[in-house]
Amino acid sequence: MARWDPGTADRLRKAALELFAEHGYDAVTVTQIAERAGITRRSYFRYFPDKREVLFAGAEQLPPAVAEAVFAAEEAESPLRTALGALVEVGTQVTRLVDPSPERRAVIASSAELRERERSKGAAITAAIRDALERRGTAPELAKPAAQVAAIILGDAFDRWIDADGAEEFRVYLDAATSAFLRACGGTFT
Amino acid sequence: MARWDPGTADRLRKAALELFAEHGYDAVTVTQIAERAGITRRSYFRYFPDKREVLFAGAEQLPPAVAEAVFAAEEAESPLRTALGALVEVGTQVTRLVDPSPERRAVIASSAELRERERSKGAAITAAIRDALERRGTAPELAKPAAQVAAIILGDAFDRWIDADGAEEFRVYLDAATSAFLRACGGTFT
Repeated sequence: MARWDPGTADRLRKAALELFAEHGYDAVTVTQIAERAGITRRSYFRYFPDKREVLFAGAEQLPPAVAEAVFAAEEAESPLRTALGALVEVGTQVTRLVDPSPERRAVIASSAELRERERSKGAAITAAIRDALERRGTAPELAKPAAQVAAIILGDAFDRWIDADGAEEFRVYLDAATSAFLRACGGTFT
Repeated sequence: MARWDPGTADRLRKAALELFAEHGYDAVTVTQIAERAGITRRSYFRYFPDKREVLFAGAEQLPPAVAEAVFAAEEAESPLRTALGALVEVGTQVTRLVDPSPERRAVIASSAELRERERSKGAAITAAIRDALERRGTAPELAKPAAQVAAIILGDAFDRWIDADGAEEFRVYLDAATSAFLRACGGTFT
C-alpha cells in the first residue's frame, strides 16, 4: 500500500483547482479529482477527509504556528501590536504553506460551503492568537478583540499579497493592511 | 392547512432549546422538536429549513436592518464611528429579535456545525455593514476593515449583554465593547 506522499498531495490540489475552474466546484466529484491526479478515490481519502479540504491543504499547520509565534513574540505596546509583530514571521511561512493563487480564492468565493469552511479556518487562527495572548498574561477581555483584529489584518494582508502576485515581502502587505485598518477606525495606535 | 403563526415559531424555539439542553444538540431530531411543540414534522419545515435554523429565528432580519441603519447614519469622524453610531439603534432592535438566553449561547458553543452557522450569520452582518458603507461613498479598502471591526464590537456587546442579563440599555454594552477594543489595540480613535 502506497505511503502518504507530498507530491501526490500537490497533484491532488492542482487537479482539483483545474477541475473546479472547468466545471464549477459543485459539479466535480472526489473520484474525478483522484483520477486526474492518477490515484484511486479510496487513496484520495488518505490525503483529505472530504472534497472541501483539498483546497485547505497545509492550513492545519497555521494555528499552531501562529500560537507559537504569538506566545514567543516580543512584548509590544498593546496586545494587538504584540500579535502583529508575531504575524510578520508567520505570514512569511504561510505564504509557503497555503496556495496563494487567485484561482483558489475564486473557487472559495464561488461556494457557500467553501466560504463557510474558510471562516472556520479563520476562527481557528483567531482562537490560536487569543489563547497565546492569554497564556502570556493578556486579560481575556483584551485578548479576544486583539486576536480578532489581528486575524482581520492577517486576512486582508493575504488578499493584498495575492492581488499583488507576491511581488514584495509579506511584511509590506501586512503594513498596508494595518494602515487601512487604522484609517477605517480613524485611529492611532501605539 | 395551518398558516404560518408566530406563536408556533416561538413554541418551536423553546421546545428546541429544552430538548437540546436535555439530550445534547446532536441527539435531538426535528421530529422530537415538532412533537414537543405540538405540530407535525412536516409543519416544522414551514417554519425552519433545517434543525440548525430554529436557533437563529429572527436573525434573517438583522442584515437588512443593519444595512438600512448604517446607510442612514449620521456621518462621523471615521467609517467605524459611523457604523457604530448606527449599531446603537440596531442593537436595541436585535435584543428583541434574537433570543438572548445563555442557554441558546451554550447550545451554539457545544456544536461545530452551530458555530459554523453562527459565523455565517455574522458574515452576513459584516457584508451588510460593508455594502452600506460603500453605498455611502466609503472607499472599499476602508469599508471592509471598518465593517469587520464593527461586527466584532457588536458581537462582543451581545455577549456582554447576555452575561449581564440585559440589566442596562444595549448602548452600555456597546460602549464597553468599544472600550475593550480600544485598549486591546492600544489605540485612540476619533
